[in-house]
Amino acid sequence: MNAVILAIGDELVSGQTVDSNSAYLARKLGERGIACGAHATLPDRRGPLSAGFDRAARDGDIVLATGGLGPTADDLTRQALADALGCGLTMDEASLAHIAELFDRRGRTMTDANRIQAMVPDLARPIRNEVGTAPGIYAELHGAKLFALPGVPSEMRWMFDHGVACHLPAGGGVILHHLVLTYGLGESDVGSRIADLMKRDGPLKVGTTAAAGLIGIRITAEGESESAAGDMIETVVADVRNRLGDVVVGRADETLAAVVLRLLRQRGQMLATAESCTGGGIGAMLTSVAGSSDAYAGGVVTYTNELKQSLLGVPDALLAAHGAVSEPVARAMAEGCRERLGVDWAVAVTGIAGPGGGSADKPVGLVHSAVAGPDGTTADRHVFGGDRQGVRTRAAYTVLNALRLRLVREA
Amino acid sequence: MNAVILAIGDELVSGQTVDSNSAYLARKLGERGIACGAHATLPDRRGPLSAGFDRAARDGDIVLATGGLGPTADDLTRQALADALGCGLTMDEASLAHIAELFDRRGRTMTDANRIQAMVPDLARPIRNEVGTAPGIYAELHGAKLFALPGVPSEMRWMFDHGVACHLPAGGGVILHHLVLTYGLGESDVGSRIADLMKRDGPLKVGTTAAAGLIGIRITAEGESESAAGDMIETVVADVRNRLGDVVVGRADETLAAVVLRLLRQRGQMLATAESCTGGGIGAMLTSVAGSSDAYAGGVVTYTNELKQSLLGVPDALLAAHGAVSEPVARAMAEGCRERLGVDWAVAVTGIAGPGGGSADKPVGLVHSAVAGPDGTTADRHVFGGDRQGVRTRAAYTVLNALRLRLVREA
Repeated sequence: MNAVILAIGDELVSGQTVDSNSAYLARKLGERGIACGAHATLPDRRGPLSAGFDRAARDGDIVLATGGLGPTADDLTRQALADALGCGLTMDEASLAHIAELFDRRGRTMTDANRIQAMVPDLARPIRNEVGTAPGIYAELHGAKLFALPGVPSEMRWMFDHGVACHLPAGGGVILHHLVLTYGLGESDVGSRIADLMKRDGPLKVGTTAAAGLIGIRITAEGESESAAGDMIETVVADVRNRLGDVVVGRADETLAAVVLRLLRQRGQMLATAESCTGGGIGAMLTSVAGSSDAYAGGVVTYTNELKQSLLGVPDALLAAHGAVSEPVARAMAEGCRERLGVDWAVAVTGIAGPGGGSADKPVGLVHSAVAGPDGTTADRHVFGGDRQGVRTRAAYTVLNALRLRLVREA
Repeated sequence: MNAVILAIGDELVSGQTVDSNSAYLARKLGERGIACGAHATLPDRRGPLSAGFDRAARDGDIVLATGGLGPTADDLTRQALADALGCGLTMDEASLAHIAELFDRRGRTMTDANRIQAMVPDLARPIRNEVGTAPGIYAELHGAKLFALPGVPSEMRWMFDHGVACHLPAGGGVILHHLVLTYGLGESDVGSRIADLMKRDGPLKVGTTAAAGLIGIRITAEGESESAAGDMIETVVADVRNRLGDVVVGRADETLAAVVLRLLRQRGQMLATAESCTGGGIGAMLTSVAGSSDAYAGGVVTYTNELKQSLLGVPDALLAAHGAVSEPVARAMAEGCRERLGVDWAVAVTGIAGPGGGSADKPVGLVHSAVAGPDGTTADRHVFGGDRQGVRTRAAYTVLNALRLRLVREA
């Protein structure tokens, strides 16, 4: 069983809008044990669209398309689908009545343009849409089941749940995904330690992804049942943890910030942040976790030297002798933050995010970080690659991970 | 001239990751007058990938692919491309030396796995990568120019600018995109004021997008030259500005934070932030703009009541009488921040981001914000919809926009 997903729209092909419908539908299919073979993004043009439907129906057993069902002149999905089926379009009276009623209920006047939305290819049938005007379309082509859904994400999701899922053939099992986050090794190092697990065939697939130094190990299992797939994943996760130890950040679907907060909460301890180059980004990461106030008190953003002195008590002499981006200043920021904000732990980051401000001695990407805790202060120095945002994100991850390791190791 | 974009990765096909590289590349091609015909998303499997390269090279004059150039066993782009070209892979010594040097510079040990990244199909040549380990690959297939780039967005962007753009043929004209950001009106209100401009045919297209209360007006112009397309856009932008006044946030490609910093810089004034529910997100937005230190001094994240008192001098009695999420506390936070951090302007936000913590009186989504400046303090109250991140983003935007309007109006 193999699915193909089509996203339709000029705004998608030209890159003005990022398509998230296709990823959503792929996940939904996976939950039903149906693997997706490929996606395609097609323009609002009748010829290429019709050819795209034809190709997708030859490549897949199931085709899910989104977009191009609106009322305006650039919405050509239904015409293109009729072309691919080799038939005409006919007004579906039930769909027309539904559209008229919807306008009525919203106190708006239905325009002639909306009538086109009730047209259905003769060899297809409409799929009802209770949350918008455009009905979907169901057809069979070259033996494939083909569903055309609206592009508006909320309508697409409703129609998948209410008009598509029940008509999907059973995929012969369940596909589960699991992500194990790691920090501290490069992608190739992680890969070499789990090389034998990264086989590409069979019901279990293991792959890696990298983002700002966080390396994710993706595990996908196809099983006959949820428990069978789940067991396969559990076995691999345990194996990966054995091999990688505390390079593994946390549990499934836990962000690095969530792990740090959980470890702090287990100890009943509070954290504060002292940020320079990250400008509040570490606080924002921590507080993106619901319930973070249990373990995160707050922090300071000391972008200027004056605020490093007045808010954190970093001595003027230290700034003069070493510069704001230095290990002594990072340590003083963390210790000043811990003391002045009255918390158990404080993390501090100072660096040069770029694009300007670098020198031979202190290049763009240089970041000094420190963690102050009950048993003293530790510091790290890194030179990160990447652009301004990349350096900032890596700086945040590296100091949160340093704190995580101290919380794990100083148990 | 017609381009096809390929995004490669199991995590994309299965929907675990949303692909934004393809949209980026389509926009970049459009700027050069090269229209994109379609995108496809393909799995990390050698057969389908090789077939995908073959198909794309038959469909397009230019093929841009991203992903699958990493060092691990699931990265099969170079092998699949060699299959499509009907050749083998050979080690490129210059690329290998570059990878070794990069590891050396970062103080890490190169593994054997990374050697695969220097392998190039015999009928192709490498594209240098100064910001990561994976070189890109350039080849010609069925008369099409084919570029394979890394999937890591920052590396992909660097390589497009430095190793792809200069080799692209000139398109038959120029497609320019322009985004006018607005804040303060809903999407349908904005749409109704520019309804006559939102026509779908002809060389000029106008549409709207919405994200966390920021409504963007997208303008696309196709012209014979950059100046012809630019003139068309300028005319529409002037018209839109006339109709919408200071609902329009700033210039093209300026974020709300960048506009605020520019207005402050023009006055020689400094800003600080006092954040509760946004947890540092406003500071992170401001400092994401290069050169923000000219106008942004820093701030405090006062997530607990204790820190609101100790760092900002918010009176205990005020917190007891009104609660942390209240107008008096927002005002006291902004005024305390302005005074204690010694700046001209301070913004403050306190709210309930959810999902927990709401009540009948103070529901999830309630945000009080304040702006303290040379001429006094103003405050706003909002109840935002959306999830935790949505509420936080809207809270940040609303207070930055309130500051923007004061900077514009108190000229």
